[in-house]
Amino acid sequence: MTKFLDRIGIPLPILQAPMAGVSTPALAAAVSNAGALGAIGVGATDAAGARAMIDQVRASTARPFNVNLFVHAAPRRDRDREAAWLAALAPVFREYGAEPPAALRTIYRSFAEDDEMLAMLVEAAPAVISFHFGVPAPERVTALRATGAFLLASVTNLVDARAAEAAGMNAVVAQGYEAGGHRGVFDPAATDERLGTLALTRMLVRRLSIPVIAAGGIMDGAGIAAVLRLGAEAAQLGTAFVACPESSAGPAYRAALLAGDAARTAMTAGISGRPARCLVNRFTTLAESLSARTPPLTPPDYPIAYDAGKALHAAAAAHGEHGYGAQWAGQGAPLARALPASELVATLARELTDASPLGGH
Amino acid sequence: MTKFLDRIGIPLPILQAPMAGVSTPALAAAVSNAGALGAIGVGATDAAGARAMIDQVRASTARPFNVNLFVHAAPRRDRDREAAWLAALAPVFREYGAEPPAALRTIYRSFAEDDEMLAMLVEAAPAVISFHFGVPAPERVTALRATGAFLLASVTNLVDARAAEAAGMNAVVAQGYEAGGHRGVFDPAATDERLGTLALTRMLVRRLSIPVIAAGGIMDGAGIAAVLRLGAEAAQLGTAFVACPESSAGPAYRAALLAGDAARTAMTAGISGRPARCLVNRFTTLAESLSARTPPLTPPDYPIAYDAGKALHAAAAAHGEHGYGAQWAGQGAPLARALPASELVATLARELTDASPLGGH
Repeated sequence: MTKFLDRIGIPLPILQAPMAGVSTPALAAAVSNAGALGAIGVGATDAAGARAMIDQVRASTARPFNVNLFVHAAPRRDRDREAAWLAALAPVFREYGAEPPAALRTIYRSFAEDDEMLAMLVEAAPAVISFHFGVPAPERVTALRATGAFLLASVTNLVDARAAEAAGMNAVVAQGYEAGGHRGVFDPAATDERLGTLALTRMLVRRLSIPVIAAGGIMDGAGIAAVLRLGAEAAQLGTAFVACPESSAGPAYRAALLAGDAARTAMTAGISGRPARCLVNRFTTLAESLSARTPPLTPPDYPIAYDAGKALHAAAAAHGEHGYGAQWAGQGAPLARALPASELVATLARELTDASPLGGH
Repeated sequence: MTKFLDRIGIPLPILQAPMAGVSTPALAAAVSNAGALGAIGVGATDAAGARAMIDQVRASTARPFNVNLFVHAAPRRDRDREAAWLAALAPVFREYGAEPPAALRTIYRSFAEDDEMLAMLVEAAPAVISFHFGVPAPERVTALRATGAFLLASVTNLVDARAAEAAGMNAVVAQGYEAGGHRGVFDPAATDERLGTLALTRMLVRRLSIPVIAAGGIMDGAGIAAVLRLGAEAAQLGTAFVACPESSAGPAYRAALLAGDAARTAMTAGISGRPARCLVNRFTTLAESLSARTPPLTPPDYPIAYDAGKALHAAAAAHGEHGYGAQWAGQGAPLARALPASELVATLARELTDASPLGGH
């Protein structure tokens, strides 16, 4: 066991990605009980909801787990852009006998401005706390560090990684372009270098003085062994856990993920307002056609666009069409397996051992 | 030494990427003499030029090396598109006191239609022959296999990889999105999945029955060790070799590559007509602005656009501005080192050994 794993308190160099909306307290507990680090994403709920999730995990495990927060900048309201976006989606709503919402809401509160969430975390004191889309202000970091929590931030480039290190993070999750779900880019207006997991992980290992956890495209023990060779202290896997029975993924999402080589992905900002990698479906195709318009149609800021996206999914799903779901998945999707979480973790651990002693090289 | 390395005839699991226009016979010979597989790219020359390059390599090494060919589909001439492209570039030419060419030429002949090149290769019989942008027709593959050559094709997705395997390739180079230079996509009109090196390599290892060589973002022995854990038989490195004194990269290209963390890259089709990863420079910025026009301006087909690109670079360079060069580089550029090729290969081999026995994991 490395110093990093010892500090986090897990025997295996494996983290389950938090995946708000897909992971569950049951998944997190099962993963942690199996010797990896389970996680819940609480970015889509409030302090009370997050506390209930934490308590649920604790009812099933005494092991450490990770609580993940969204730390996005406040969205800019832009009525014209929102109206244009809703108008563009309206014909699709009508295909399913529905109307788009009259107006859009900011459905998620950023941890950057959520004092109740901070107070709850200080009180509940989970072992690991992680951040997506940015890092909290110094006084929040100080308050969370004082609980003894190990702090993690997802980063996609060197600039954000250095900002995370400077902000007092204990480690970073190097999120490669392969990864499913939302890109953890701090500034969505900056050019995204789209760094792959291999290039990003190695660069951050070489440039930072805090541990690096690699994420993106890792689906099995060989993938974990690979990123450990790059100098990562652990691997974070999301897509690998989506098909576990303990996740909250619906049947259509599971079926699309388990379609084998047909499970292709695309990066799109059209579902939520932030670039995110999703299984190619009706929504990614629609979003691509909207961004290919002349002039291109731009979705409202995250998470305002997501309000429309969720409404469209609900309208279509009510008529049996599940192709507008946020079916987040990474580029490793064709290698997804449907195994109970404990069995998946045990399999990953066995594969990792098998992959490691490859003789001369 | 693995069966694959034994078949190729090299002791180290390291291939130097061919890099037409950057690699040289001297680089290839130095790499092969150091125990890796050197390579020359002959896609930008004719059969006589290629033969001269092969003879030059052989004058400096008796070891195996790789001869790389472009197998792109014939470009479609489109006078309107070509004229619009030249008109868009004209103001930049004029900044350097030049006029754009009156018309564009198809500057490279594809191996798909080059019978002299085929006859030369059958005669010269290099140990390894590799293909970019596609695979040759069956009778050409048969003729080259009959020489005893080991045949390689660059692939960027599972569909192309399966086509390469079916066409009789002995192995594939899994070219991840991180990689510098031209994407080896077979059909430029198809949606590019932009698969990262880690995800692509692992998927191809799992799906193909021929060996996989990983490429893209690999800059040191740790990167090589990582892809071997994914099941790759070897790693191919291009950017790592650009700064070797034996390459033909000019001083401005070398300086830009060795700018440390400022060495960022972008994928652009604006330089040559095919997506290729280049150091961010004046040309990538110009190309991005042209593709962001409403409606977007599309470059002529590869390699017609490259005729304009090379002319623009020549015009600017004549006035001391080297920012319009095709400064191909991968996402690992910040980790580039300027070492003689033999020393670089020895360093990679030492790092690989150091990275391998990492204890329990």
